[in-house]
Amino acid sequence: MQLTILGCHSATPRANAHPTSQVLDMNGELMLIDCGEGTQVRLRREKIKFSRIRHIFISHLHGDHYYGLIGLLSTFSLLNRTAELHIHAPQGLEEIIKLQLRVSHAYTSYPLIFHQLDSRKAELILDNDKLSVETIPLSHRVYTNGFLFKAKPGDRKLLIDKVQNLDIDKAYYKSIVKGKDVETRDGRLVRNEDLTADPRPEPSYAFCSDTVFKPDIVPQITGTTLLYHESTFLEEQEHLCEKTKHSTAKQAGIIAQKAGVQKLILGHFSARYKNLSLFEKEAQVVFDNVENAESGKIFRFE
Amino acid sequence: MQLTILGCHSATPRANAHPTSQVLDMNGELMLIDCGEGTQVRLRREKIKFSRIRHIFISHLHGDHYYGLIGLLSTFSLLNRTAELHIHAPQGLEEIIKLQLRVSHAYTSYPLIFHQLDSRKAELILDNDKLSVETIPLSHRVYTNGFLFKAKPGDRKLLIDKVQNLDIDKAYYKSIVKGKDVETRDGRLVRNEDLTADPRPEPSYAFCSDTVFKPDIVPQITGTTLLYHESTFLEEQEHLCEKTKHSTAKQAGIIAQKAGVQKLILGHFSARYKNLSLFEKEAQVVFDNVENAESGKIFRFE
Repeated sequence: MQLTILGCHSATPRANAHPTSQVLDMNGELMLIDCGEGTQVRLRREKIKFSRIRHIFISHLHGDHYYGLIGLLSTFSLLNRTAELHIHAPQGLEEIIKLQLRVSHAYTSYPLIFHQLDSRKAELILDNDKLSVETIPLSHRVYTNGFLFKAKPGDRKLLIDKVQNLDIDKAYYKSIVKGKDVETRDGRLVRNEDLTADPRPEPSYAFCSDTVFKPDIVPQITGTTLLYHESTFLEEQEHLCEKTKHSTAKQAGIIAQKAGVQKLILGHFSARYKNLSLFEKEAQVVFDNVENAESGKIFRFE
Repeated sequence: MQLTILGCHSATPRANAHPTSQVLDMNGELMLIDCGEGTQVRLRREKIKFSRIRHIFISHLHGDHYYGLIGLLSTFSLLNRTAELHIHAPQGLEEIIKLQLRVSHAYTSYPLIFHQLDSRKAELILDNDKLSVETIPLSHRVYTNGFLFKAKPGDRKLLIDKVQNLDIDKAYYKSIVKGKDVETRDGRLVRNEDLTADPRPEPSYAFCSDTVFKPDIVPQITGTTLLYHESTFLEEQEHLCEKTKHSTAKQAGIIAQKAGVQKLILGHFSARYKNLSLFEKEAQVVFDNVENAESGKIFRFE
């Protein structure tokens, strides 16, 4: 599983500061999270195959999180995509996209399916054999969700000594790791739990941007493997957080620490800061395993 | 006067192939022509001061000519612009922009004034003391205009021998070049035409993209200093022009030759071509002074 950062800066795009966009690869399912201006160029630069993206999640309708979407959707058509594309986004985005397609007489070459988000409570919005996705209600200047991605459990772990001791034919191994019971050569039924161990804990990823400090998300994201939490400001500018509905690096660290996540990634940095390492340092005061997002950086996790 | 190419490629933006956008500086008036995705980053890279742009001209509502506009308008607000901004564009753009501003509760910090283009005939859309702008009706898959920018005449040329012979006080020189008559020290009236020559011919710039080969634009652009004409294809792919409503490099050359322009600039190259010098070569068969557009290239003209 891996998370590729395409952009992690707030507001205005600049030459080396791309707005929010990420690609999450979870059990082979490739998903785009937010899509600021220039995202399609960033996807090309990271050599991510456009056609593998089946789901796009948009946290909220501020431009730095979605202005790149219409261009990407148009490019999919130019590339003659035919596979379904699902957009999970707040109310309003469908109207914006469809209006732009209409004025250019440019209908998509593929089914474009909008899933409108409007709940103020966490809800399950995607559930397939690879993963599930829940919204994380956030608090920003407009209606905003984070997203919690949970990988589905993989195969059970084969206890090789046990199956060898029972002389079970290798042909059964595949069904055993899928959870099936098995018969020995002499016709004795052996229960699956005696031949396998639980699969390793499934990784999960929580994306939380943009939001004011909101500790009530902690129960939902407790134990998450990887947490991306916005940190637009340093503590020195905390007074700006209430008005703009953003968080500081320290506040992101507190969320990570309370939720007991494995690793915290910081992003959505304000353009006012030149030295971004200060963000890591500030969060580390409360939570040790923290790393800044950076365009092109890949976070692998299992 | 100078024309800065920000992007000159068709359709999908790629790392080094930016969609159409140009900045024209004419008598100190800075104007943006088309605004594909990523234009604001290109403006920054060329160190063009955002606040100096007062007029934006959009040729047509295909994404590669306007998807960067909403981001640029939002950035103007983030930069606390207060000066009026005028957008000259086909019907539909105002609705698109205002819808996007509304969903994000992000009204502009400055007066944003739309001038809707819908005429099928050439019309004068801007006329001030520095220049005039006319539409050039083009023929593309959607309603499309080119734009003809004509600089206003500068000061008349002072005939220095004549004014010195008549012993005219230097204090009058400024009003003489503006076209005023003057009195000699002994009270004799001298007519302006006896003291000045016509100012040098005023430069003009015609922007023609996107369009199928359309020779009926020739009378309007005859004698233009600089002509940008789209050349999406080479002659080898001319069969694609009728369906897609684009031109070849040779067709652009024919327009330039018939209109007797000083220089032809080619652009809007299809992504299928690797060797863009073939475009110049093809057009040169019919018109000698031709040069490819290129991101970051500046064409100076007087």
